[in-house]
Amino acid sequence: MKFNYPKGHIDLKKDHGDQLKINQNSQDHITYGNRGMSLEANLNLTNEQYIALGIAVIHKKPTPIQVVSVDYPKRSAAKITEAYFRRPSTTDYNGVYQGKYIDFEAKETNRKKSFPLDNFHEHQIKHMKDCQDAGGICFLIVNFSLLDRLFLYPATKLFEWWDQQFQKNGRKSIPLSDIEQFGIEIEYGYAPRIPYLEALDQLIDKK
Amino acid sequence: MKFNYPKGHIDLKKDHGDQLKINQNSQDHITYGNRGMSLEANLNLTNEQYIALGIAVIHKKPTPIQVVSVDYPKRSAAKITEAYFRRPSTTDYNGVYQGKYIDFEAKETNRKKSFPLDNFHEHQIKHMKDCQDAGGICFLIVNFSLLDRLFLYPATKLFEWWDQQFQKNGRKSIPLSDIEQFGIEIEYGYAPRIPYLEALDQLIDKK
Repeated sequence: MKFNYPKGHIDLKKDHGDQLKINQNSQDHITYGNRGMSLEANLNLTNEQYIALGIAVIHKKPTPIQVVSVDYPKRSAAKITEAYFRRPSTTDYNGVYQGKYIDFEAKETNRKKSFPLDNFHEHQIKHMKDCQDAGGICFLIVNFSLLDRLFLYPATKLFEWWDQQFQKNGRKSIPLSDIEQFGIEIEYGYAPRIPYLEALDQLIDKK
Repeated sequence: MKFNYPKGHIDLKKDHGDQLKINQNSQDHITYGNRGMSLEANLNLTNEQYIALGIAVIHKKPTPIQVVSVDYPKRSAAKITEAYFRRPSTTDYNGVYQGKYIDFEAKETNRKKSFPLDNFHEHQIKHMKDCQDAGGICFLIVNFSLLDRLFLYPATKLFEWWDQQFQKNGRKSIPLSDIEQFGIEIEYGYAPRIPYLEALDQLIDKK
């Protein structure tokens, strides 16, 4: 993978820890937004950048598919002719950053004041709890599309909201105000496009 | 998930660190073998057991599939009608053990004296090197089917053999003797069926 850095751009390989600050202080006050790309596309690009920069190795897992029927035509690749999407039992993204296990789910919402809990299912919450118990670092990346605001939010807070929803008068969504208070807002950058590991460092410092 | 421990079996939740020893010293000298299950099936069971025992959260990644065409019949699930298997760009298994990132590939061979390097492709080796550089723990689980011998072998050694194959007169396989010397042999157990994390602990102690 090759990067064409804009003129005057700092080599992030040396300074990646200061990425957020660098963007904020850059002479031109360039702001990148999501560039019309989906959250997933932006995260995939970000993960390629993290690998290329030697910062972390994090991948989106393939979508689990139940293969029912396959044709093996002569002299060409096996062709799957019947298959179904399966519900994932884990989160979408995992990998390694500074030796630590990283595990997260990325979600978008059109809501403006809260993030609905029905974006998750029980299996995924259990998976994140198990990972956290085994010493992993779990979080969400939440995009409020209409507000154009992106947050990293710790899984421990998600667990609290998840569990209270089953109580009497439990809320079915996480208020934006809680995400603002306990999460870290992420500004889009250039490389990495979504500097979520820098946000994670801030979250750990904040505690 | 529920376990039915055989009579007199020790609760592994308390003593999992001694699993290999426990099996060797058990009064009945029970030996479990692979029970006719494939390496993948045994590893999947093992990983379920590790999760249930609260030891680690490690999963096989779904097979990457390129979906070309999908039907959406009314009132039933989306049906994929054309798709192709893609070559994986990472290893098959990853997860978290004691906060550490674990990443491995599991392979079987019918050879009796060596393990062929063509079991891997360049992308997977690069992935393991990247993970190792990011502080992860990478290894192979190699099954010599005809010998009924199973080993955990460190990725660092694999890298050495991988790189030398491109030199003049480079070997195209890893000798069994090298795997015996630098790996850890794994005996099948009951729960976990393949106690590979205990083997990993031994490997780390051995260094």
